Amino acid sequence: MSSDEFVVTPWHVEGDIDYDKLIKQFGTQKISNDLLSKLQKITGEDHFMLRRGVFFSHRDLNLILENFEKGKEFFLYTGRGPSGHTHIGHLIPWVFAKWLQDKFNVNMYFQLTDDEKFFAKQDLSLDQTTNFALENALDFIALGFKPDKTKIIINTKHIKTLYPIAAQVAKKINFSNTKAVFGFTNETNVGMIFYTSLQSAPCFIENKQVLIPLGVDQDPHFRITRDIAQKINKTKPALIHNIMIPSLLGPGGKMSASDEKSTIYTTDSPEVVKKKINKYAFSGGQSDIDEHRKIGGNPDIDVSYQYLRIFFERDDSKLKKIYDDYKSGKMLTGELKSILIEKINKFLLVHQQKRQEARKNIDDYTVSYKHLRAHETE
Amino acid sequence: MSSDEFVVTPWHVEGDIDYDKLIKQFGTQKISNDLLSKLQKITGEDHFMLRRGVFFSHRDLNLILENFEKGKEFFLYTGRGPSGHTHIGHLIPWVFAKWLQDKFNVNMYFQLTDDEKFFAKQDLSLDQTTNFALENALDFIALGFKPDKTKIIINTKHIKTLYPIAAQVAKKINFSNTKAVFGFTNETNVGMIFYTSLQSAPCFIENKQVLIPLGVDQDPHFRITRDIAQKINKTKPALIHNIMIPSLLGPGGKMSASDEKSTIYTTDSPEVVKKKINKYAFSGGQSDIDEHRKIGGNPDIDVSYQYLRIFFERDDSKLKKIYDDYKSGKMLTGELKSILIEKINKFLLVHQQKRQEARKNIDDYTVSYKHLRAHETE
Repeated sequence: MSSDEFVVTPWHVEGDIDYDKLIKQFGTQKISNDLLSKLQKITGEDHFMLRRGVFFSHRDLNLILENFEKGKEFFLYTGRGPSGHTHIGHLIPWVFAKWLQDKFNVNMYFQLTDDEKFFAKQDLSLDQTTNFALENALDFIALGFKPDKTKIIINTKHIKTLYPIAAQVAKKINFSNTKAVFGFTNETNVGMIFYTSLQSAPCFIENKQVLIPLGVDQDPHFRITRDIAQKINKTKPALIHNIMIPSLLGPGGKMSASDEKSTIYTTDSPEVVKKKINKYAFSGGQSDIDEHRKIGGNPDIDVSYQYLRIFFERDDSKLKKIYDDYKSGKMLTGELKSILIEKINKFLLVHQQKRQEARKNIDDYTVSYKHLRAHETE
Repeated sequence: MSSDEFVVTPWHVEGDIDYDKLIKQFGTQKISNDLLSKLQKITGEDHFMLRRGVFFSHRDLNLILENFEKGKEFFLYTGRGPSGHTHIGHLIPWVFAKWLQDKFNVNMYFQLTDDEKFFAKQDLSLDQTTNFALENALDFIALGFKPDKTKIIINTKHIKTLYPIAAQVAKKINFSNTKAVFGFTNETNVGMIFYTSLQSAPCFIENKQVLIPLGVDQDPHFRITRDIAQKINKTKPALIHNIMIPSLLGPGGKMSASDEKSTIYTTDSPEVVKKKINKYAFSGGQSDIDEHRKIGGNPDIDVSYQYLRIFFERDDSKLKKIYDDYKSGKMLTGELKSILIEKINKFLLVHQQKRQEARKNIDDYTVSYKHLRAHETE
């Protein structure tokens, strides 16, 4: 793969992603200034992740907003593949989804795909992925979703609700479709081949249009869902895509829950966070201080700066000062990393408390409630 | 297809089946006289379906019996694809399974694959196949299975128990395997591709070896299961195969629930049975009475005679007399058909009463009970 090539699929992200190219390649829409204004008008807020292009692309978000203005409600759906503990990159779409839930006062479904990760990872057992799902659920709950409007779906636990919906989808997808969209081969296991139907299922769990905030790598699943929606007399899901959160180790690839080094987990202690950032965070700075003071750093490729921009520094003027100071050489890499370490640890201190509290009320989110249409006892 | 060719797969049976050839083709074992004697010794009975070769082939039945003699219990499992009402051909393995349950006093699982038939039949909805499943369950219950030792599994209703087991199987099957065993193509829908894992799941629902009485057309599913059992540290299922019950219309093809004419349903009235047999039952007789008296009929290809042999006439001496009289020309086709019509209607009179009673206690069979290992509420 040459340096200007990149790969983005649900199971593999590699290379330096050109998001404008990706929009063309995937056939999505860039979030326009008009759409940003409309969102701002309806919500009364200019969310930093929208302003900074962390959410950069969509499908049918305009329709969702038009319908909402006409009084037509939608619901939210996102998810996570529980192959390990939650890392800070996972929180991006969830934090944004929480904001959407607050602003639009709508139902939210969160799918934990323990089956998918079991099918995809040779050395993970289903018990392991289900346990990770329960751990990941704590992080989700810790972000403050409304229990009466939020349901956490763990695929193996809620399969009775999902399977009859997935079956409607599965009947309309053939092996060729999955080859074309996911690059499956004759050696792909039949769990993986079927799986995309289960990721589609929550789109049709309520009889309303759904809006899915998600990492752009998950878009291929819903391209299939959108194709099929009409065939089964359902509304196409709408999507809003965030960029991939870079790995600590630098550009090329998203942060992966399975590589310890490249990942800051929500369960990491302050010392571990400090060590990981100082030791592994890819730097845009120069190799010695004198040179850095003279030439300056490159915040655009600096992972610590990117984490501040994407999530941890919400104040635009503070962020701009960091950018300028780092670029001019006034701010050293060590100083930049210290700012990020402090921000992350401050966030995790609160998050980890809420995460512990979530253990007590996880049932409020995972046990079925009445607006789910299927009977969930058997 | 030339006249000496035949096809036997779970979704397509065609041609005049040579069962000795099929045993070689599928790689199963013929039920030997030694094995018959052993079964007779253990059960104290010489079952007519064994004696007459209705059950003709097996895999590991010898192991099941050896282990049983050493005090090691097994359990039973069979099923049905609910694409329509039950026809009399379906009852064959169930009646035999009931006998096995009585003789060995073991647990029995009966799987109704509403999802499979939905995936396989373009014009059936999932609601329709689920409704047929419930109707078919009544026929099964009517045969007298012990409620405390029998569980009816309807795939979409009991998917929470099945799916985690199916997932273990699915991870070990790739698309090539399903192509080789079922002849799937790139155009096969992903529901069908995944489905075989769900038909395997009940094999591992208890931590014992399973014995599956079933039509030989279903053998390919369990060939896959047997290959995989070792890979997931489970015991291979054992099988005992019955021949395909011929269509009313004659040799070549099994009785199919979707073709009205070729099928006698358990819900048919006496008049309908009479009309179907008289009008459609393929005859081994001559075209006029004089010729029949002179040349005689051929009971070996006569469907009415075959139904008597396979299920409706359990008395060997009566059956032999019918055979001889028909062959010699002493018995006319109309007389043979009358015998069968009377037998079927006598059977259905009782069956239909029991079937109605089954509506009251279907929950005793479909609601989970304690020896099932999975938690079935969500």
